[in-house]
Amino acid sequence: MIIAALAGGVGGAKLAQGLARLLPPGNLTIIVNTADDFEHLGLRICPDLDTVCYTLAGISSRQTGWGRANESWNTITALGQLGGPAWFRIGDRDLATHLERTRRLHRGEPLSQVVREFSDAWGIEHLILPMTDSPVATIVRTNEGDLAFQEYFVHRECRPRVHGFEFLGIDAALPAPGVVEALTSADAIIICPSNPWVSIAPILAVPFIRSLVAGGKAVAVSPIVGGRALRGPAAKMYSEMGMKPSALAVATQYQDLVGGFVMDHGDVELTEAIRELGMQTLVCSTVMHSLRDRRQLAGDVLDFLQAGWK
Amino acid sequence: MIIAALAGGVGGAKLAQGLARLLPPGNLTIIVNTADDFEHLGLRICPDLDTVCYTLAGISSRQTGWGRANESWNTITALGQLGGPAWFRIGDRDLATHLERTRRLHRGEPLSQVVREFSDAWGIEHLILPMTDSPVATIVRTNEGDLAFQEYFVHRECRPRVHGFEFLGIDAALPAPGVVEALTSADAIIICPSNPWVSIAPILAVPFIRSLVAGGKAVAVSPIVGGRALRGPAAKMYSEMGMKPSALAVATQYQDLVGGFVMDHGDVELTEAIRELGMQTLVCSTVMHSLRDRRQLAGDVLDFLQAGWK
Repeated sequence: MIIAALAGGVGGAKLAQGLARLLPPGNLTIIVNTADDFEHLGLRICPDLDTVCYTLAGISSRQTGWGRANESWNTITALGQLGGPAWFRIGDRDLATHLERTRRLHRGEPLSQVVREFSDAWGIEHLILPMTDSPVATIVRTNEGDLAFQEYFVHRECRPRVHGFEFLGIDAALPAPGVVEALTSADAIIICPSNPWVSIAPILAVPFIRSLVAGGKAVAVSPIVGGRALRGPAAKMYSEMGMKPSALAVATQYQDLVGGFVMDHGDVELTEAIRELGMQTLVCSTVMHSLRDRRQLAGDVLDFLQAGWK
Repeated sequence: MIIAALAGGVGGAKLAQGLARLLPPGNLTIIVNTADDFEHLGLRICPDLDTVCYTLAGISSRQTGWGRANESWNTITALGQLGGPAWFRIGDRDLATHLERTRRLHRGEPLSQVVREFSDAWGIEHLILPMTDSPVATIVRTNEGDLAFQEYFVHRECRPRVHGFEFLGIDAALPAPGVVEALTSADAIIICPSNPWVSIAPILAVPFIRSLVAGGKAVAVSPIVGGRALRGPAAKMYSEMGMKPSALAVATQYQDLVGGFVMDHGDVELTEAIRELGMQTLVCSTVMHSLRDRRQLAGDVLDFLQAGWK
């Protein structure tokens, strides 16, 4: 089965890693959100892409989910001692990624090419694509004004109340080379358990992508379990946007897009309501701690797809 | 006694440190070469300034003379693994200096202000000034063509044969704020034992500086001992420029500039020839390993100046 997966950061990366353990390299393409990329210290930083790459390469931090394993923090510590902006914690090894990516982008390479070259260097066999090679920037509309995503997410620790999102540059963005082909040729599309508002929505907002995903072969895995986000501000965002955070809210958001919905045992009582949205459901264990959990969930989702979502 | 010192990298930094141990903060200004500064990985790197600052702050590497003590190399190693340019070895802590300096320069701060702020952060009490706030770049003319200085010095390890030097941008450069004042108000000017061709010559080539140094109150300390450079390519450069490398060659180069010349015991047989150039001489131990050596040489030079170079 040929799969295209849409992923944001940590949650998406975990499922992508599970899928990569089960599918041969030619059968899996991971399309990653780049709307939370930003410029910092003169560097182009792509948090979701790096999380997916580090995770698939097996060099990500097990403690944090983001950044690299066995990391040291000497540069950012020294930068803080000089009075520089140290709120965005960049590890020493991770910093090399940003330096070298920025150098290559400045010399004119598209981001998708840089990702492919880095994937090769890290021994990643599956194809990882940025959603677009064009710069797109998530703006979070809050009670404290419009905030650049990382300003909201890292610097303000998601404290401001959200009332909307904007993806600057999205209308002028084109899917990165390979994205349309991957979505078209896939037997199924998996929307990973990433934040629907700021990880999946920007991917879907890139011109052409939404209609390709809505072609009847997509399933989504809920990032909300028992009314809580497994990670990050998704549940808080649902509340502030006027919705009760739940797997049902996620399913409702994906209503016109997916024919199948994967949810945790803890949310089994929502099955009927979600089926009423016109979706087949799979109830399984969606919380991924170990690599075994990731492979298990990936296998359950692939079985669900293979069985025709019955 | 109020002193202004001209310095390049390691040798100059050592004597500057010795002087800083003997002179109160208000009585010493160190004017540092910036012609071997360069852009690398999108960063503005100022090797001589950093060596002088790290040395005076007591955070420089004792092993190498440049870079920081207790350094780690995780970023540059990871960069090399990505296929990036890892020939210029930047340590993790050192990298913070370049990142934060570049950030401040890009936001419009002059280099001299950045150096002052970094000096404060590192607890340096003596005044360190770049020779200029304008970009100047040493080009080394060699049998393999014109090479940017760090390309010659680090990447090619000084192997090409030299036949000349050019300091790009020097005519449009102005002394950094404080430089003219420091040279004018100093009781004496010390040319540190730095490379005359590529460390001291560019400082002297900044408009106005040469004439201020030539005012009759300057002494030079030879970086050549027993026909060899204590460090770096100075001796090789003398040979390739058609001069026998020696303390005499250094003195000849500074002939119109200095009234006093400080040379090592090993070169005592050159004393008469150097005196014939119209200089007073001081023969002492000029090789600096320990901090004690540095203070000793600084004290000998200050005594020489105080005694009126007799």
